Order: sequence, then structure tokens, then C-alpha cells
Amino acid sequence: MGRLEEVIKKIEPLDVEAMKLAGERQDSLTKPQGSLGMLEELSIKLAGIQRTPRPKIEKKVIFTLAGDHGVVEEGVSAYPQEVTPQMVYNFLHGGAAINVLARHAGARVVVVDMGVAADIEAEGCVNKKVGYGTRNIAREPAMTREQAVEAIEAGIEVFEEEFRRRGVDLAGVGDMGIGNTTPSAAICAAITGKAPEEVTGRGTGIGEEAWRRKVAVVKRALRVNRPNASDAIDVLAKVGGFEIAGIAGVILASAAHRVAVLIDGFIATAGALIAGELAPLARDYMLASHLSQEAGHRAMLEHLSLRPLLNLNLRLGEGTGAALAMHIVEASVRIINEMATFAEAGVSERVE
Amino acid sequence: MGRLEEVIKKIEPLDVEAMKLAGERQDSLTKPQGSLGMLEELSIKLAGIQRTPRPKIEKKVIFTLAGDHGVVEEGVSAYPQEVTPQMVYNFLHGGAAINVLARHAGARVVVVDMGVAADIEAEGCVNKKVGYGTRNIAREPAMTREQAVEAIEAGIEVFEEEFRRRGVDLAGVGDMGIGNTTPSAAICAAITGKAPEEVTGRGTGIGEEAWRRKVAVVKRALRVNRPNASDAIDVLAKVGGFEIAGIAGVILASAAHRVAVLIDGFIATAGALIAGELAPLARDYMLASHLSQEAGHRAMLEHLSLRPLLNLNLRLGEGTGAALAMHIVEASVRIINEMATFAEAGVSERVE
Repeated sequence: MGRLEEVIKKIEPLDVEAMKLAGERQDSLTKPQGSLGMLEELSIKLAGIQRTPRPKIEKKVIFTLAGDHGVVEEGVSAYPQEVTPQMVYNFLHGGAAINVLARHAGARVVVVDMGVAADIEAEGCVNKKVGYGTRNIAREPAMTREQAVEAIEAGIEVFEEEFRRRGVDLAGVGDMGIGNTTPSAAICAAITGKAPEEVTGRGTGIGEEAWRRKVAVVKRALRVNRPNASDAIDVLAKVGGFEIAGIAGVILASAAHRVAVLIDGFIATAGALIAGELAPLARDYMLASHLSQEAGHRAMLEHLSLRPLLNLNLRLGEGTGAALAMHIVEASVRIINEMATFAEAGVSERVE
Repeated sequence: MGRLEEVIKKIEPLDVEAMKLAGERQDSLTKPQGSLGMLEELSIKLAGIQRTPRPKIEKKVIFTLAGDHGVVEEGVSAYPQEVTPQMVYNFLHGGAAINVLARHAGARVVVVDMGVAADIEAEGCVNKKVGYGTRNIAREPAMTREQAVEAIEAGIEVFEEEFRRRGVDLAGVGDMGIGNTTPSAAICAAITGKAPEEVTGRGTGIGEEAWRRKVAVVKRALRVNRPNASDAIDVLAKVGGFEIAGIAGVILASAAHRVAVLIDGFIATAGALIAGELAPLARDYMLASHLSQEAGHRAMLEHLSLRPLLNLNLRLGEGTGAALAMHIVEASVRIINEMATFAEAGVSERVE
């Protein structure tokens, strides 16, 4: 049995007993029942994930996975491909948005080269390069089936290494890769069955003409490659990307290790779609950070039955939405652990 | 000139030059322009409020104002009136939701007795009691016009004392008061012109029958008192509350001192409606923390042209939504101060 199958097999349903106890505790705290809305639901989900009515969050990690995409030769992005490695260096030097927001959240950032089309010559980048960018999905499969499995397993290794060495109580997962909204839209269309026009967005900010070209490219990628929607590895190999595969791996490993994982935006959620198809139980460990401005993100979240925590018109990626949402998840855990009960505080309960 | 008029006169428009410079800086940072959505808009607004392209947030304060309401004798709440002082003690002992979320946000909590129907015998509560609860608005005005002005001015004093003694860069304002969704719904109906049925909600969680009674009470309060919508002090005096008046005062003083103020939920936004009518320029200093589950909150926010930062189905009050949203506001400020520019990081700009 390969590493991927092993990890999938390790994923268990949430602990309903811990969730029941967490719900009872929420109802005993000094506030009208249910008045903290999604914070209460989150704390109960975390209880189920961590298998204790008193979940804790101390060690937070954002995994930012980078990869390049052969499809950029079709002119689908507003930025040149060299920006992918340039931004990886920016992550390593601490100057990118994800660095700022992770610092603000008290989270570490783990930067991973899953398949950047250049060598990253710097300390601090985890090297899991599967190739120098994918092939152009408008003409041929992005990668081989073996590469797809290799890339998912690389994501699993990244999570497990971090989990073993420094611990992870709450994970976030994000992306960097010029051109990667195109494969993400193709994955979305293949798995949700939505039309390419509906799920293809403006990415980093392309104009009307480039958008039409991008929609045509997504359609061509689906026509040329004919991904099999009931085989997520096939979808990933044909129209995916190395960082998207790695993201799926990080998510699967998080679920296997009973760690809640905040999915960032459109690209990270494409990875979550793959993970959810490979292991439906993994969906219970996913938290949707935010609703991206990118068309198609809503359809992805609906497919996964996830409700986003934030809606701030973000469309950056890198894990930025995940880093921002960590504060909310932690708040839910602090509420259940730190608030006084009606009995403790001597507050009267409802009379009606 | 009274203190209220003085403060209103001190409120100035936002600094458009600082906002322009902040916008230019946002566009020079290593991310697609606009890709951080509301975080970018927030940082620009903060620049306008603080009159510098590099706003800072170091000192955060949540003001939680408490008061009681004569209208509880109509059976409009699920909880007995004694819960108001009990919760004030809970705030002072650190066991309430607002304490937990303020600690999580790194904010101080200032608890104010604006008009609780009992003496608060404990250290740490700011005593600005205007009366032992308001009168029953279903039968007569909540308070006199003089009391309304006194209560607003008390809120101004609370903010100014804190501002002078310990500093405030970012304020949040919330409420505690059994029965206070009823006067808030009445204020909402009076000022926005919406029907009582549309803006009256379930409060702490009343059933169908109590809700019908509550709608009838709001209608009666408007019919009996005939508040003059073009005179916010009249609306406040006739159908408001002491803590709602104090909240309006905190907001006006924040604006006068160029401090952004996060409005919590339904009751705090009722105070914001009053403040916005008294000083339209004060609206520019308001930030809407979240969209409450309470019916009518959306109408209030639309009247103030505010878009909520969070939507987590909260309906607790106390300033809890404001405390949660502080993290987002701080994130926006850290982004503009800490991110690298394209030039600094050696990242290529867009080509399309």
C-alpha cells in the first residue's frame, strides 16, 4: 500500500461524543444559547476533530506551496512566469502579504517548491520539486499519473515533517503560481460539472479579452484531456498543477492527524476538491477561510458543503485568507475554554 | 456651547491627501492591485482617519456600556432584568464573552454603568449612571431630553478619559442591557422609516408569541411617543436607552479625536444611528464589525452606508463582534506598513 492510500485509510470520522459535550458546554456559558453563531459551531467542530470537548490551538502553521504552469504560454495571466520564483524569494525574506498576516496570526509559514520553473537557491524553502512547471493543459496532460501521486505524497510529507518536528494544532494552506487559476477553474468544472464560463475568473486581474481567451483555454483543456470526474487523480494529472496536488496532500495529512485545516482561496480549494474526492471524510477537517472574489469559488465551497468564515473580497492566495481566519478559529476555542458558566458567574438563566 | 456641541464641531472630514498616498502605497506592494479587497480599503480609510498614509494601531479599547429598560415589564425579553447587573459583574470578573474576545484581540475593556437598575458595588466599573433604568417606552418617553443629552455627554467623557489616560488608537463599542433590542428596533424604525415588523428581532431568543408582543410594543412606543425623526435627541429621549445614548457619545468622541470606532451589533448600531444623525461626518469614522442575526441590523447599516467586516451569525452584543473585527482592522494596517514593494523585493510588475 502506497503512502497516499495509508494516509487516506487513517482518516476517521469526527468524534461525536466530544462534539456533544462541547455543545453542552457552549449551552452552559454566560450568553444566550447560540448567540455566538458560527463561533459556537466552530468550537464544536474543533472538538470533534481533536476528539476532546476542550480543543486547543497553540501551534499554527501556514503551508504555502508554489508551482508553475505550462498553460501560461496561452496568455492567461497578467503577470510573467518569473514572478513565481520572485514571490518565493519574497516569502523567504518575509516581505509578502502572507508573511505579514501569518506574523499577525502568530503562525509559522512553511514555503514549499512543488514545481517552480526555476531553481530556488535560498535557505528555508522546502524542496519537493516534481518538475519545472507543468505541461500546457490546453495541449496535453499537465503531468503523468505517477507525478500526480508523487506530488500529493510530497504534500503529505511536508505536513508530516512539520507535525513531527514542531507540532501543528491548526493548519492553513495556500498557493503561489502564475497561471494557476486556469487549472483550478478546469478542476472546478470537471468535478462540480459547472460550465467553464461560470467558474473562470479574472485571476490576478486580466481584462475582458484575456478572460475570453482563458475561458477558451479551460474548455480546450477539458476537451483535449477528457478528465474522468470520478477519478480525482486523473483530473489532477490532466488539468491540475504540482502545487494543487501538494495542497491536496497537506489537507489529507492534516485530516489523518486530526488537525483542522483552513483552506485559503480558489486554488487551495481546487486542492481541497481533489482531497475531498479521494477521501470524503477529509471534508470534515476542512474549514473554508473566506469567499474569494474569483468566480467559481462559491461553486467549489458548495460542492464541499463548506461555509466561508470571511468575505472580504480577497483574491490574492498565498494562504492570506487562511492566516486571517485563524484568529476566528482560535476565538472559538478560547470561548469554550475561558468563558464562565451561568453557575460559576451566578447569572440567572432564561425565564421565558 | 455644551460639551455635545463642542465635540460635534470638532469632527472633521477624512484627510483625502493621506488616503491618496495610502492608496498609492497599496498599489506598490507585492500583490496584484486590489487583491486584498476590503483590507486595502480599510487601510486607506484608517489613513484618512488618522491623517497619515501609515496609520498605526497599538492601543485598542472596547467600551461596553450597560443600562436597563422599563419596557421589560411588557415581557419583551427571555431573561429577567437582574441579568444586567449580574453580567456587569461577570464583565468585571473577566468571565464573559467580551472579556475572552478582548483578551484575544489584545484590547482593554472599559465597563460603564450608564443606567443599570441596581447599584454596581465593585471596583473597575465606570459609574455614569443617569438613572435606575429608563421608563417604559410603551407608555411614556424613556427619559427626558436633558437626560438624553447628559447620557451622550457621559459617553463622551468615558471616551475622553480613556483617551487621555491610556490612549486609544482603535475603539470598539458594545452594550449590555436586558430588553434593549426593543428600544433599538424603535430607534431603527423611527430613523430609517422601516416598519416595526421588519426591524424587530428575536433578541436573546424569544419565541413566536413573545415576538408578536414585542412588535406590538415597538408600534405602541412609536404611536404613544411620536419621536421626531429629524431630531435625533428627541428619538433617543422618547424611545432610546441610557447605554444607547452613551454609545452615541463614545462614537462622537472617537470621531472628534480621529479614532476609528468599530460598531458592534444591533444595539451599538442604534447608537451609531443617533450619532450619525447628530454629526453626519462621524459616519466616516465608523466601521461596521459584523452583520448581526438580529432583524433590522442590515437596514441600520444600509442607512449608515457601512459594510460589515464579519458575518458569523452573532447576536450577543457586549462588543463581541467589535473585538473579533479588531484583528481584521489591524491586519489592514500591518499590510500597509510591513509589506515589501515591487521595487524592494525585485518582483516584476504586470505585463498585460
